[in-house]
Amino acid sequence: MTEQYIARRMERIAPFYVMDLLAKAKQLEAAGRSVVHMEVGQPDFAAPAPVAAAGKAAIDAGKTGYTPATGIPELRQAIADHYRDRFGLAIDSHRIIVTPGSSGGLQLLMGVLINPGQEVLMTDPGYPCNKNFVEFVSGVPVSVPVGPETDYQLTAEMVRQAWTERTRAVLVASPANPTGTVLSRDALREIYQVVRERGGVLIVDEIYQGLIYELEAFTALDVADDIFVLNSFSKYFGMTGWRLGWIVAPPFFVDPIDCLAQNIFLSCSAPAQYAALRAFSDDCLAIFEQRRQEFRRRRDFLLPALQEIGFSFPAVPQGAFYLYADCSSLTDDSFRLAYDLLEKEGVAVTPGKDFGTNRAAQHIRFAYTTDVERMNDGVERIRRYFR
Amino acid sequence: MTEQYIARRMERIAPFYVMDLLAKAKQLEAAGRSVVHMEVGQPDFAAPAPVAAAGKAAIDAGKTGYTPATGIPELRQAIADHYRDRFGLAIDSHRIIVTPGSSGGLQLLMGVLINPGQEVLMTDPGYPCNKNFVEFVSGVPVSVPVGPETDYQLTAEMVRQAWTERTRAVLVASPANPTGTVLSRDALREIYQVVRERGGVLIVDEIYQGLIYELEAFTALDVADDIFVLNSFSKYFGMTGWRLGWIVAPPFFVDPIDCLAQNIFLSCSAPAQYAALRAFSDDCLAIFEQRRQEFRRRRDFLLPALQEIGFSFPAVPQGAFYLYADCSSLTDDSFRLAYDLLEKEGVAVTPGKDFGTNRAAQHIRFAYTTDVERMNDGVERIRRYFR
Repeated sequence: MTEQYIARRMERIAPFYVMDLLAKAKQLEAAGRSVVHMEVGQPDFAAPAPVAAAGKAAIDAGKTGYTPATGIPELRQAIADHYRDRFGLAIDSHRIIVTPGSSGGLQLLMGVLINPGQEVLMTDPGYPCNKNFVEFVSGVPVSVPVGPETDYQLTAEMVRQAWTERTRAVLVASPANPTGTVLSRDALREIYQVVRERGGVLIVDEIYQGLIYELEAFTALDVADDIFVLNSFSKYFGMTGWRLGWIVAPPFFVDPIDCLAQNIFLSCSAPAQYAALRAFSDDCLAIFEQRRQEFRRRRDFLLPALQEIGFSFPAVPQGAFYLYADCSSLTDDSFRLAYDLLEKEGVAVTPGKDFGTNRAAQHIRFAYTTDVERMNDGVERIRRYFR
Repeated sequence: MTEQYIARRMERIAPFYVMDLLAKAKQLEAAGRSVVHMEVGQPDFAAPAPVAAAGKAAIDAGKTGYTPATGIPELRQAIADHYRDRFGLAIDSHRIIVTPGSSGGLQLLMGVLINPGQEVLMTDPGYPCNKNFVEFVSGVPVSVPVGPETDYQLTAEMVRQAWTERTRAVLVASPANPTGTVLSRDALREIYQVVRERGGVLIVDEIYQGLIYELEAFTALDVADDIFVLNSFSKYFGMTGWRLGWIVAPPFFVDPIDCLAQNIFLSCSAPAQYAALRAFSDDCLAIFEQRRQEFRRRRDFLLPALQEIGFSFPAVPQGAFYLYADCSSLTDDSFRLAYDLLEKEGVAVTPGKDFGTNRAAQHIRFAYTTDVERMNDGVERIRRYFR
């Protein structure tokens, strides 16, 4: 049994290129080489101690069975309360669906909203899996090239231009991966209006919500109530490997999403849900705020240091923990550069190719998920490489 | 935004009927009524203490980040070793893919193997989600009615008859849900031969492996190496809410499955993986064996007690923790019976309707996931109902 048994969608679903690079990094480390990791898309902070303790207490109490497919009611309520406390919004907890990571949320939304052949608009560059969630349900991902002129974000005009009779949904992210840029309230409202006028749905990825360094944290639900919002406990809350996220959906969609979640997931991790419940307490929120400040410090260190070497940032990365560097004055092959930096200098970064095809060879993503001291070492190595 | 925004596949994806019944059971309990639960598809045993302790130790050690999409190498090796120790089979650990529950495994297999429009053969009655995993990737689930004549299992002849030019895969389960019946090695070999002759793939659900009461536990991998096997830490290992399972795939398919898993899941729960690693130690295996004996005692209590009331079991349930009772001498509406038993006597069971349409109104599923004393109370209530 070989190729002829593989479903055709797999031809269009690419593995992450950075995985090969990571394997190579591991080999180097196993051989005793030092590698500075600036490729990793997860915080170097684990869940705060009270969250970890709550997870362990759930295990001790035997709260490790199946939960309702949409999540334990207490957690749905805690998330709803968070929207009230942080954004002043009244969201009924029934509209919150807890998911196995925001990956699970993307599956549910594509499954419930997208028919085979229907198009979903998204940015290039963008989170590499987005298009594959669309492929998985036999939809058609349509990548719209975006650049620094629009902060690497879609605009209402771009959506208007890219819209066809097959378009069903638009997926935007704010703050975005890999660029760290955010959509302004006005830009989002304009996109929303175009989408709704044309009878489509708007999905907003707020996975990096809270990790924002100049502006106020903000939610698309403030613009309209019938936007689908994706969120995650992985990034701001530092719970990557616990696998937990959530969706906020308009009321009509909750039952279909519940039905699909019952069928394809049964339940999210029970210990993770009880742990996450603790994340909204004041002590934990204070820790997250300290971490946000730390990420800001890192960005403020790394950005000018890379500029000095010759990388450029024509749009200001205001959130997440990524810098999407234009390296066109240094190389015309960022993929090669990524391998060179790893092999010659022991610095791991993610090549633009992992985020799309739009000027991918001229870009590289740096993650500031490593402390300043270590990043300083990384910057020195990169400087040496270009010397 | 209402119906017109829901993808068409959702018309074919049904929620579990038992969910409504469960909600009603909760209402009754909240109002002070006692309910005997014989509907629950999860063991009443949590993970053994050493497994729980290993999960907590992982949390303490901060082993809570993303893991490789196919699972931590140690766990893949431990599962491979389990096939060696238990079944005398040499399975390369590379062929083991750790999944977020066997639900995750079903998604990966359907995603990698099934093109839109291709058919997957399965039994009716069967696990209700199976057809929906096929729907999710725009495949066509084809349910073949099975009865006690064939132990509620497919036969090679049935597969031959149901095969069309669009058939790509056959999915069987042993022990099966809801019937608890097993496929003999010979029956499985015959099915495998028909499937391979016709150029299809065979997927064997071994989620209840180990929970078998007369025969030796057995794996389809003993019949052939190019069978796709699904397994789970939920049932035999008692880890339902931790959400962990695995696939064994032929070597050629490991990379495509890895690629899809990277994209749609990123990673399985890290604490769950470190916990599960502990499940293969001798002390835990001894606990699982005790539990198996306990399940056998329960089956041996419940089956004759239900027969006395008038339920019949024309095929012997040899595994899992379910009895699929033919109730046709008692009612011609098992759905109504399930509600009546709950409302009038406080006994929760699962109506046949949740497992398909083939004589569903004449069947009801009893789960023996409750101790004998409590089940005895349930049996008394049912007896009273029919008096």
